[in-house]
Amino acid sequence: MQVPPVFNPPPRRLLGPGPSDVAPSVLEAMSLPLVGHLDPVFVKMMEEIKAMQRAVMLTKNEMTFPVSGTGSAGMEFCCVNLIEPGDEVIIGVNGVFGTRMCDVAERCGAKVTKVESAWGTIITPEQIADALKKVSKPKFVAIVHAETSTGALTPVEEISKLAHAAGALMLLDCVTSLAGCPVRIDDWNVDAVYSGTQKCLSAPPGLSPVSLSPRAMEVATKRKTKVQSWYLDVNLLSAYWGQERVYHHTAPISMTYGLHEALRRVLLEGLENRWHRHEQNHLALKKGLAEIGLEIVSQAGHQLWQLNAVGVPAGVDELAVRKHLLTDYNIEIGAGLGPLKGKIWRIGLMGEASTKENVDAVLGALRKILKK
Amino acid sequence: MQVPPVFNPPPRRLLGPGPSDVAPSVLEAMSLPLVGHLDPVFVKMMEEIKAMQRAVMLTKNEMTFPVSGTGSAGMEFCCVNLIEPGDEVIIGVNGVFGTRMCDVAERCGAKVTKVESAWGTIITPEQIADALKKVSKPKFVAIVHAETSTGALTPVEEISKLAHAAGALMLLDCVTSLAGCPVRIDDWNVDAVYSGTQKCLSAPPGLSPVSLSPRAMEVATKRKTKVQSWYLDVNLLSAYWGQERVYHHTAPISMTYGLHEALRRVLLEGLENRWHRHEQNHLALKKGLAEIGLEIVSQAGHQLWQLNAVGVPAGVDELAVRKHLLTDYNIEIGAGLGPLKGKIWRIGLMGEASTKENVDAVLGALRKILKK
Repeated sequence: MQVPPVFNPPPRRLLGPGPSDVAPSVLEAMSLPLVGHLDPVFVKMMEEIKAMQRAVMLTKNEMTFPVSGTGSAGMEFCCVNLIEPGDEVIIGVNGVFGTRMCDVAERCGAKVTKVESAWGTIITPEQIADALKKVSKPKFVAIVHAETSTGALTPVEEISKLAHAAGALMLLDCVTSLAGCPVRIDDWNVDAVYSGTQKCLSAPPGLSPVSLSPRAMEVATKRKTKVQSWYLDVNLLSAYWGQERVYHHTAPISMTYGLHEALRRVLLEGLENRWHRHEQNHLALKKGLAEIGLEIVSQAGHQLWQLNAVGVPAGVDELAVRKHLLTDYNIEIGAGLGPLKGKIWRIGLMGEASTKENVDAVLGALRKILKK
Repeated sequence: MQVPPVFNPPPRRLLGPGPSDVAPSVLEAMSLPLVGHLDPVFVKMMEEIKAMQRAVMLTKNEMTFPVSGTGSAGMEFCCVNLIEPGDEVIIGVNGVFGTRMCDVAERCGAKVTKVESAWGTIITPEQIADALKKVSKPKFVAIVHAETSTGALTPVEEISKLAHAAGALMLLDCVTSLAGCPVRIDDWNVDAVYSGTQKCLSAPPGLSPVSLSPRAMEVATKRKTKVQSWYLDVNLLSAYWGQERVYHHTAPISMTYGLHEALRRVLLEGLENRWHRHEQNHLALKKGLAEIGLEIVSQAGHQLWQLNAVGVPAGVDELAVRKHLLTDYNIEIGAGLGPLKGKIWRIGLMGEASTKENVDAVLGALRKILKK
């Protein structure tokens, strides 16, 4: 066959729902020579990653490490390890990712009770309390913290209290929230959590940082049935990421290098500083959007700092605007999904990409394209 | 917390069972700036990857692409998509990876008939023929082509004919064989195959190139039950890797860059040239080992070119030798697993690492350490 030429990506500003822009030092880490996945220097680095991930997630959970897949693999990791066939679970559904979690949980044999809110709004403690009255023995209550598909941030603390009062575990999707706004795993008593590397952590996509509380680990280790996924079975993974270092699968070396550097950057900046930066740039974007007649359409008071759901004005061709931004300005923003298709743009300001310069760039480009 | 310093890996020669050394141009590709996973330039690159992967696997299968996980995720991909609960399957077991596949298949609800050979030897067509007499309706026959844990290469063609004559699909693990010795998916009538990036393709670990024949796709699309893994469901993945480009999960952008460049390098060298290089360096290693009283212990006539199972002489501390190689020579080789633990070293000459210089380096170091 005709061998294609070397791939040469254009210089995009990644202001969509992820992947976000990656720092030069993370890209440099990705390009370091490989070592073996059982090499003592790699093992030491794995320990550093576990410690840094705990610091970023604000948890003391021993079982805190990155799963070798993207955020959706992290979702599946939590479900396959906690669910046994016939278990009842309660899942908040207010966007793509809650919908997806129901599908994943059902494939694990769970009886799923959906708690639904309109896309763009949050799941409330009252809704969860109602659901808990109807479900006799819930294994877990699950919430998507930051719904990337809608731009809404659901508060976790009250829901977690309700879940535990009913004897359930609390499961949290923090793919888009982690490192972009407060995520307090231990304070909120979250038992199982997964994230992704390609949002506010600003590493390339490919790993899913997860954490299980001792309570969740007890459920996973004392199950009656085998975990249906060998690849994601925490009973096997814990022997590799724990002290025994038993070979399970070959860890993605270069991605692990990248995550190590990305976590370092988060901690060197400081979590609070990083959250504040995301908040400030979100507010600047919101103000600038208002000046050109655009508004963020997710529920007031619960709008994400890292992902802005912007209403497409009547009469504007949303796809044409996105194409224009990409082709003429090298700016990627996201489209709406599901019921929001054609109705919103999704402007991400995640991790490295949450800068004043990016806010100005996307506002300037939109102003020209929309002739405002 | 005290933030750890920048990770700085030592310059290893990776002559173990994988990961193997990665070419500088592949590391460079890994460090390119990211684009979005639905960006037209990324989509074009995905098409190039599919075409190159077909060329390397010698197949015309439309459904040929990399799964977003390591080789073990590829194994699970094949099993979850083809197996429905209660299905009968036949699996050749002559090492770690056949053993693993039985576990994976059982977790999918399969009734597994194991065809066992001693570790280090191959699975024969006669053994498969015997098993086929006992299994009424086998869904597939599966073989590990190159058993990385033992260094034995099982011929596929006859076994595939027997499988098809019995109405079964043929499933092949070519994690270690692909691009290091002949792998002819279409000529051998293989229906489902998975590989890994970190062996003879010489990209970092993290993706699993897979391919399904139209026959296997028919089984996957016409199943009565949902695929138990959402993440690995080919019915969903085909919509992203196919013409529709429907969002499924966020593709691991940088790993995909790396695989693109690694596949380019394989095709620019030429498959036959690459196989020949692996053969020549294996023969040179074998000759040099014999000169210092060491021998390859896997079955004569079926020894892998890319992974050499070397018997540990009586009285030699195998772990001490490996530590010595790593610490004083920066050379990684592998240990034996399972029944071969302590009995063999595994010297990989995979992809970029299959060079005369590496053969000389490992022989020279072993000569000094063993005082030969």
